[in-house]
Amino acid sequence: MSLLVVGSVAFDAIESPYGKVDRIIGGAATYFAVAASFFTHVNLVGIVGDDFTERDEAIFRGRKIDTSGLERAPGKSFFWAGKYSEFLNERVTLATELNVFADFNPRLPEKFRKVSHVFLANIAPDLQRSVLRQVQGTPKLAALDTMNYWIERTPAELKETLKHVDVLMINDSETRQLSNEHNLLRAARHIFKMGPSTLVVKRGEYGAMLVDSKGVFCVPAFPLEEPHDPTGAGDSFAGGFMGYLAGCGQSNDAALRRAMVYGSVLGSFAVEEFGPERLRKLERKEIDARARHFLKLTQFKL
Amino acid sequence: MSLLVVGSVAFDAIESPYGKVDRIIGGAATYFAVAASFFTHVNLVGIVGDDFTERDEAIFRGRKIDTSGLERAPGKSFFWAGKYSEFLNERVTLATELNVFADFNPRLPEKFRKVSHVFLANIAPDLQRSVLRQVQGTPKLAALDTMNYWIERTPAELKETLKHVDVLMINDSETRQLSNEHNLLRAARHIFKMGPSTLVVKRGEYGAMLVDSKGVFCVPAFPLEEPHDPTGAGDSFAGGFMGYLAGCGQSNDAALRRAMVYGSVLGSFAVEEFGPERLRKLERKEIDARARHFLKLTQFKL
Repeated sequence: MSLLVVGSVAFDAIESPYGKVDRIIGGAATYFAVAASFFTHVNLVGIVGDDFTERDEAIFRGRKIDTSGLERAPGKSFFWAGKYSEFLNERVTLATELNVFADFNPRLPEKFRKVSHVFLANIAPDLQRSVLRQVQGTPKLAALDTMNYWIERTPAELKETLKHVDVLMINDSETRQLSNEHNLLRAARHIFKMGPSTLVVKRGEYGAMLVDSKGVFCVPAFPLEEPHDPTGAGDSFAGGFMGYLAGCGQSNDAALRRAMVYGSVLGSFAVEEFGPERLRKLERKEIDARARHFLKLTQFKL
Repeated sequence: MSLLVVGSVAFDAIESPYGKVDRIIGGAATYFAVAASFFTHVNLVGIVGDDFTERDEAIFRGRKIDTSGLERAPGKSFFWAGKYSEFLNERVTLATELNVFADFNPRLPEKFRKVSHVFLANIAPDLQRSVLRQVQGTPKLAALDTMNYWIERTPAELKETLKHVDVLMINDSETRQLSNEHNLLRAARHIFKMGPSTLVVKRGEYGAMLVDSKGVFCVPAFPLEEPHDPTGAGDSFAGGFMGYLAGCGQSNDAALRRAMVYGSVLGSFAVEEFGPERLRKLERKEIDARARHFLKLTQFKL
């Protein structure tokens, strides 16, 4: 099995009640790749500017991440700046500078085209579609993230792309916006008609919910006393989820449930420190210990 | 084992996007008693006016509910009117007429004084305290609900009462207000210093969370496509929770987890129809089936 991720590699400036960083590596594909690399080999496709140094790239080294699809272009890397509210439940975007990302046109290296699992991080739906076109045959599992921007601006392109993915992985407000349904079960039924057979709703401090034809599975967020920075939590969740599925090669109900748990585990570590700092230091045994903690958190016998 | 509940028995006028009722029996003690009666005998203490007829009392009949503590006073019963927003996640109180409830001074019939489990529904903290004083000895488990009104208006009385209860069962905003902590784990530690050793946080559509010295247990809300009326959901949750514990006579970790599930089951049924109509018709086998459904909703194997 092999896992491909296409998305942003960026620099972030982040402010939260716990501190401030002016420039830290970020981007959806970064969080996703690091999280997923604990479970499987990851092929990364993205674009960075000439400000992206060897030192920056170090985050991918020593891991099962192939960065030969990380294009370098003249100019600056994608930059995002944001500030979180007192309780981390709201954020304001202070700056979004697309830079080289504005002309991103994902090209899969030949060796990336044969891939079993694909994650299309939040980029323009027509680019997501172009990635799927470059994949040889039909991947075993294709998952997609998107956001309000694309739901509002490019609904037709998004709907075309959704026809070709298995898993839609978005947050609750995006779910409601895309489906025009407030109730998440009704929203799921609506979304299934668009193409995906599985909906994963990321609910932040309330955990995550998977809906498919077999029913609903809920996992809570891991209770943390001091989350520092929510940046990248959703992408780390996606990385844990897809990484686990690609690593185990299964996609039955039991595997999907475990994937939800590993997603939550990775998301919970991601928020413990600024940027991807906690993921950098993370060890597999900590992941396994926290997954067992999720058992304690949720299991009961009748 | 025996379970005592003290709280309101009332008439409600309810409006939601699914309809409108001008006068339906309600009140915390009503929902609680009906929910708990599926598991154990319930002794109810409350007050109603002379507008409360035999027909109204029928909701308690044919169940394991002893209403000899339901005082009748000249005047009208407590009346509440409220309207829910489009998605049921907000509500406006249109009227609160205390009527005979204004002079409620709970008196336990002699046969109610020897009780193992006590639930103090949301009434003035000094009245809650007076109930505990009337109980013979120390109950095995005393639980308390309260609201922003008492947290703001009678903080000293509430703190005195909290010293004498084991379980505090409130919603997330009340938890934050009482503890002055946004983070629920830190809030729990704060609340443990006030007296209770167990905190149950009711989170509406996000389920419920129990925190005690052994850790955290989370249960999701049962996913429903068409909840009609959230009135009484929290009290039905409390009824399922306390009813189960009193019925089984245990309060170890496994029992508390099951109690959380049965609480969620009863809460989920309560919202399916207006007022307590769904609970009226409910059968024990439906409760057990939905509890098993909660297993499907949450269980995974690593």
